[in-house]
Amino acid sequence: MKNVYVTRRARFNAAHKLWNDDWDEAKNLEVFGKCANPNWHGHNYELHVTVKGVPSEDTGYCMNLKDLKDIIKDKVEEPLDHRNLNIDVPFMQGKRTSTEILIIAIWEELEDVIAERGCQLHHIRLYETENNYADYYGGE
Amino acid sequence: MKNVYVTRRARFNAAHKLWNDDWDEAKNLEVFGKCANPNWHGHNYELHVTVKGVPSEDTGYCMNLKDLKDIIKDKVEEPLDHRNLNIDVPFMQGKRTSTEILIIAIWEELEDVIAERGCQLHHIRLYETENNYADYYGGE
Amino acid sequence: MKNVYVTRRARFNAAHKLWNDDWDEAKNLEVFGKCANPNWHGHNYELHVTVKGVPSEDTGYCMNLKDLKDIIKDKVEEPLDHRNLNIDVPFMQGKRTSTEILIIAIWEELEDVIAERGCQLHHIRLYETENNYADYYGGE
Amino acid sequence: MKNVYVTRRARFNAAHKLWNDDWDEAKNLEVFGKCANPNWHGHNYELHVTVKGVPSEDTGYCMNLKDLKDIIKDKVEEPLDHRNLNIDVPFMQGKRTSTEILIIAIWEELEDVIAERGCQLHHIRLYETENNYADYYGGE
Amino acid sequence: MKNVYVTRRARFNAAHKLWNDDWDEAKNLEVFGKCANPNWHGHNYELHVTVKGVPSEDTGYCMNLKDLKDIIKDKVEEPLDHRNLNIDVPFMQGKRTSTEILIIAIWEELEDVIAERGCQLHHIRLYETENNYADYYGGE
Amino acid sequence: MKNVYVTRRARFNAAHKLWNDDWDEAKNLEVFGKCANPNWHGHNYELHVTVKGVPSEDTGYCMNLKDLKDIIKDKVEEPLDHRNLNIDVPFMQGKRTSTEILIIAIWEELEDVIAERGCQLHHIRLYETENNYADYYGGE
Repeated sequence: MKNVYVTRRARFNAAHKLWNDDWDEAKNLEVFGKCANPNWHGHNYELHVTVKGVPSEDTGYCMNLKDLKDIIKDKVEEPLDHRNLNIDVPFMQGKRTSTEILIIAIWEELEDVIAERGCQLHHIRLYETENNYADYYGGE
Repeated sequence: MKNVYVTRRARFNAAHKLWNDDWDEAKNLEVFGKCANPNWHGHNYELHVTVKGVPSEDTGYCMNLKDLKDIIKDKVEEPLDHRNLNIDVPFMQGKRTSTEILIIAIWEELEDVIAERGCQLHHIRLYETENNYADYYGGE
Repeated sequence: MKNVYVTRRARFNAAHKLWNDDWDEAKNLEVFGKCANPNWHGHNYELHVTVKGVPSEDTGYCMNLKDLKDIIKDKVEEPLDHRNLNIDVPFMQGKRTSTEILIIAIWEELEDVIAERGCQLHHIRLYETENNYADYYGGE
Repeated sequence: MKNVYVTRRARFNAAHKLWNDDWDEAKNLEVFGKCANPNWHGHNYELHVTVKGVPSEDTGYCMNLKDLKDIIKDKVEEPLDHRNLNIDVPFMQGKRTSTEILIIAIWEELEDVIAERGCQLHHIRLYETENNYADYYGGE
Repeated sequence: MKNVYVTRRARFNAAHKLWNDDWDEAKNLEVFGKCANPNWHGHNYELHVTVKGVPSEDTGYCMNLKDLKDIIKDKVEEPLDHRNLNIDVPFMQGKRTSTEILIIAIWEELEDVIAERGCQLHHIRLYETENNYADYYGGE
Repeated sequence: MKNVYVTRRARFNAAHKLWNDDWDEAKNLEVFGKCANPNWHGHNYELHVTVKGVPSEDTGYCMNLKDLKDIIKDKVEEPLDHRNLNIDVPFMQGKRTSTEILIIAIWEELEDVIAERGCQLHHIRLYETENNYADYYGGE
């Protein structure tokens, strides 16, 4: 059984701010710095989605990356691209929009729909900038 | 006289939207598409600032890039980074925040202060995404 | 009049070989080396298309990059992506498929259709590999 | 015992197509899309080869990357660069040329010759495009 | 418990050479090649530091990357940037300056100070060139 | 007459420092900052060499990039790679090793030998870091 890990890269451009309503403005600025700018800022997010599987004899594919591309388009790009992460995104309602919380939320959007195709979501990487990124493996 | 062109790269992360108040929402969405999302979106902008000059015999420099870095920090990063281009930036008030208009505005912020150092601003490049960017040479 | 140069990046993956039918195999291998492999090789080509114009007051755009993207898709990606440059591409028939000849041919495909939109094609860059690329400005 | 993982990057440019002879053309096009173009397409493949080991006290090296470079040149670049993966490559005969099947075949070419040098092949990454890549750890 | 891995990228530019005083010059040149040039050579090193943790409910952060940036500046950039790795760096005294030995030394500089902030250093990657890099996970 | 510009990328890793012997150490440190570290620092330099020409009908080439690669190897990589720019490089003797002075010196090494092949050197770009680079067009 030869597992291979296959990755599709995607991108989305979004606005957000880091803010905790339980704190006053001074505390928010102290903790989040310029990320708490009330009028928002934004990023070109880059996402890498990795699935694990044994290549099919018929196709040589773990998963047709065309299908994975469509799933990412439907579940990630459609709700997040050119959106405000704090306001516009149903699955981020009431959540902090840090890279850490966002990557967990994206995992939860993708995990089951990929499993329905008989594949296993293995790893997500999410770049917020060229200097900052997060990795998630489902919480283990 | 041996002119060399020296470039410093900088980055800033900002929110914006494309919108024309003379148009209704339908027209804005038709022209600007998802870039007109009312709740903003954002980008990791990447800026390349190029100055032209003859290297000094004493230093081998056209311009000390430490000085150019400080100028860009003061004139570009400070007002634009982690800001909303439509709301927070004095020199963008009342302007469209397209890459084209933004690059002209950045040129106008930089040109004189670089000239005061005895150098000549030659070229700016501004990346909005990895697929879209603008170049400006002062309008010639 | 403030001209700005706006660029859209695109990509296509194609097979090709370098071959001159006026020469025998030995001469072809001598001149073109492994690029003359009879069974083809291929590349991930990366294309940068730059148009020149004065931004519109209404939109802030030189040209809506959505339109430029569609033109590149129609005129470049559709005929070239996942194709054999020597066999499958009408506008490359009977031509050498070097980066130089290919970039001239792409220019000729794009120039008029961009002019019809009231814009001016200014520059194309075509990467064959990360180490080799060509630039074309219409032949001047 | 302090294991360090050391990686060497290499590149090769090749033609291929995805095709299953058990299927007719319509089925091949349905499954593989434009990757089934009969006249081939191609890619700039990028390969990362990672070996695991404890650095030698004498050299500070897990493995001299000059040696790893030579092994990759001999076992990967020589047979694959500027070749047709479906026709020209002995170790790909009769196999699907998907990234998944190719990465397993490259692993099998490299594993023993690296072991003969007293090192352990740990991981391979193979980029087909900037958006698609595969990872392999020997099948576990 | 949902562990997320968060990474901060940093860079430093340094001179070094590979040399073993127990060997004569001929042996050093044989083993280390041009890396043994007596007058030094140098690199733009790129470092990725990854910490592991469960995001805080209050902040959404595993660790404030501003803090991680400051730690890297203090422990890595300050002693290594624009330095000679063989001469100027206290924690490299008497050590080979290979990427492998350097990455272990950087880990040892970072591990405890990150633990003091209640976080766990998980992984370091160190690029010496675009073709050569090392990974370290604490020696397991 | 359709001029095309063709570029070859190369890389070299070198040590250097910025220093003016007419100044004392304090003045050197004031002007050059940490670039004046007496024990050197270093960089992964990246060089882009662009030649201008009309593609040959026989080959489709302005210049065979294999020839340009060999010229760059002979004139740039051989004398500069894994060297100390201030000590080891004949054509840098007595010169400041700033990016500006280095790019002019590289131009002078390349110009005639490329002209001897019937081609015209048009442009050099030299990256010192990802944030700093210089361009030279022969001094016009």
